[in-house]
Amino acid sequence: MKDMLGREEVLSVYSAREALLKSEGFALPGVNELDIDSSLNRILAADILSPEDLPGFSRSTMDGFAVKSTDTFGAKDTMPAYLNIKGEVLMGKQPEFEIKKGEAAKIATGGMLPAGTDAVVMFEHSSFAGSNLLEVLKSVAPGDNTIHAGEDCTKGEKVLIKGHRVRPQDIGALAGIGITKVHVYEKPVVAIIGTGDEVVTSSVKLLPGQVRDINSHSLAALVELYGGTAIQKGIYKDNYEVLKRVFDDSLKEADIVAITGGSSVGTKDMTSKVINSSGKPDVFFHGVSVKPGKPTIGAIVKGKPVFGLPGHPAAIIVCFDLFIKPVLKILTGETDKFHHVIKRLVKARLMKNVSSTAGREDHIRVRLEEKDGEFLAIPVLGKSGLITTLVKADGTVIIPLKNTGLEKDTEVDVELF
Amino acid sequence: MKDMLGREEVLSVYSAREALLKSEGFALPGVNELDIDSSLNRILAADILSPEDLPGFSRSTMDGFAVKSTDTFGAKDTMPAYLNIKGEVLMGKQPEFEIKKGEAAKIATGGMLPAGTDAVVMFEHSSFAGSNLLEVLKSVAPGDNTIHAGEDCTKGEKVLIKGHRVRPQDIGALAGIGITKVHVYEKPVVAIIGTGDEVVTSSVKLLPGQVRDINSHSLAALVELYGGTAIQKGIYKDNYEVLKRVFDDSLKEADIVAITGGSSVGTKDMTSKVINSSGKPDVFFHGVSVKPGKPTIGAIVKGKPVFGLPGHPAAIIVCFDLFIKPVLKILTGETDKFHHVIKRLVKARLMKNVSSTAGREDHIRVRLEEKDGEFLAIPVLGKSGLITTLVKADGTVIIPLKNTGLEKDTEVDVELF
Repeated sequence: MKDMLGREEVLSVYSAREALLKSEGFALPGVNELDIDSSLNRILAADILSPEDLPGFSRSTMDGFAVKSTDTFGAKDTMPAYLNIKGEVLMGKQPEFEIKKGEAAKIATGGMLPAGTDAVVMFEHSSFAGSNLLEVLKSVAPGDNTIHAGEDCTKGEKVLIKGHRVRPQDIGALAGIGITKVHVYEKPVVAIIGTGDEVVTSSVKLLPGQVRDINSHSLAALVELYGGTAIQKGIYKDNYEVLKRVFDDSLKEADIVAITGGSSVGTKDMTSKVINSSGKPDVFFHGVSVKPGKPTIGAIVKGKPVFGLPGHPAAIIVCFDLFIKPVLKILTGETDKFHHVIKRLVKARLMKNVSSTAGREDHIRVRLEEKDGEFLAIPVLGKSGLITTLVKADGTVIIPLKNTGLEKDTEVDVELF
Repeated sequence: MKDMLGREEVLSVYSAREALLKSEGFALPGVNELDIDSSLNRILAADILSPEDLPGFSRSTMDGFAVKSTDTFGAKDTMPAYLNIKGEVLMGKQPEFEIKKGEAAKIATGGMLPAGTDAVVMFEHSSFAGSNLLEVLKSVAPGDNTIHAGEDCTKGEKVLIKGHRVRPQDIGALAGIGITKVHVYEKPVVAIIGTGDEVVTSSVKLLPGQVRDINSHSLAALVELYGGTAIQKGIYKDNYEVLKRVFDDSLKEADIVAITGGSSVGTKDMTSKVINSSGKPDVFFHGVSVKPGKPTIGAIVKGKPVFGLPGHPAAIIVCFDLFIKPVLKILTGETDKFHHVIKRLVKARLMKNVSSTAGREDHIRVRLEEKDGEFLAIPVLGKSGLITTLVKADGTVIIPLKNTGLEKDTEVDVELF
């Protein structure tokens, strides 16, 4: 997009993200069947209906005696009801006897109610009047101290919905209703292409003028952290034919393609040219008013989100958070209703004045210290090309678009990495 | 522990947890070597020192011209300095020329400064006076628009510390300094033993009176979620000899042993007896003033934390959070300084009065709804033996020990699952 003077238009973070996310028709990845014990944090690809009533039989929720509640009506300390103890319910077994009027059966928590009973008298409200004679000291109503068949869920009831991220208690519930396998979405695949004539893989010995690839490693880890699968395609020199071939391959095998740039103008231009080469992209921004991260490119090519990312390690983290993460979330199939409120925020006192340019969203890296029960946010200064500033930082403070800075001692929200 | 009247003493959550955690001498698990790309969220078992200076050479941080800063002193729009352009620095290459007084070299961001230069003039502050003649319109000081060799980190500098949980930017930094493998702690192993005459594995067809195992599945997933490896030992009937053998095996192969109970008194007594059988435990509590979760057993047997957990699915989640999670964290080797402040809290308005017993910490499950920009916390009622209440809930509200309840419309902190 160019403005009237032919300059590339720089969008606000909000506009750039909206342009990307409103582009509908992202195809969700395929579906896998997994054992429930391997499904933690995966996204359900179908609603789960209970195949049976849970529990399948009426159970006691207390240790005590299973009775006909009518036999206890009016019973109290001063006027107990007397019942004959007919037997004991064995755990995990169906009682072989039936309880008739005037009878009771010993039962433990979780035991199956014998036929003829509808309530349980707690041990604490009973005593023995003879070896088989029970004194009931408090009346019970029908259903007291029991869970009836189907009370937890009934056959056909929707237990979990499509798009839900599987939590530990969900795995427990699935096991409880006898479901041992579930269908989940495959993880979205993100192809990561490294570029830059000066960039080499981290395992080789450096020649003067060369630097090691940092960004495809941190980007791959971010993808993994947020539910995707990363494919590191390697590092490529700024050669159009080679880059175009890798890009086209990546578009076929991945759901998202990210090109992490070298730092030179040449690399940036090449990235833009390659992204443009596959026909006109649906959405395209080239430059976002955020620091770090300004030279970010965003596009939808052949229905797939494609990103050209700046070369600075700090910019990769910010751009992932602002643009790739929300797209990745759509592609995981997750429909979590609280995603937007879950931030790992810590209130802290800013320890330095920080200036910002109005019209640009600034992401300031800070280190946290705890002192006298209060958190102090210390801006980690250093040129944005440095890696160690990122490693020393614990989180980020965002200065919004309209703001020109924050004063020392302001209370800030630090979003932890 | 028994009190003066011979009753089992019920500890507060705080006392029970302190007793466990003060027991030192937990042995950390072994150490593994991993590729950095596989080390996300693992815990470093050694400090990482940089094997080299980063960057290894002085680089430009801008697109422009590498110069001797002294050649630009006094330069301004109205009185430019004039320099001969000697050549261009190629990305990733050591310049083959040296810059002498009165000379400059074209350089891109990330390019290696040629010998003889100490600063970079930005493109924006220059213009061409002839094909090889540069006008410098603004003076630069030594070091301007450059990163000098070793500025990011120096050889031997501590980049990451032992006990640190590896984040994406850390993986990037490791790649940057040429470290491709790291030593991390093995994940602590938690053996999970299921008990209860009425409990069967989730894959079998139920007979009347039987229920499926829920707890070892949700517990295994919780262990995985918090950095451990779970071994599900299976479900065992309440037979002392069999349980004792499984327990002894588990103590050998695992770092933590958890016995998830059936619901009956018999199972609970058996669990206690088995835990006591391996000599006198170092720490022992039997009963904690928390709901759900009261009948929890905690012990250190032969230096290893051992838990007897109640049979209710909701109690498993609470007990894991209160007791197993902090012990597991110690055993992962993590020394994260902000662990205690990171909670996924959402402020919400309580939609019902909730009562609690003073002297007991109550964990109330709630469902969240968003309405007019506000979150409403709706207590999920239902007997505590029900599984679906856990599935329907989004998080927990804790009513502290001394409190007797919360009134409708109170603002509460909901800790999301």
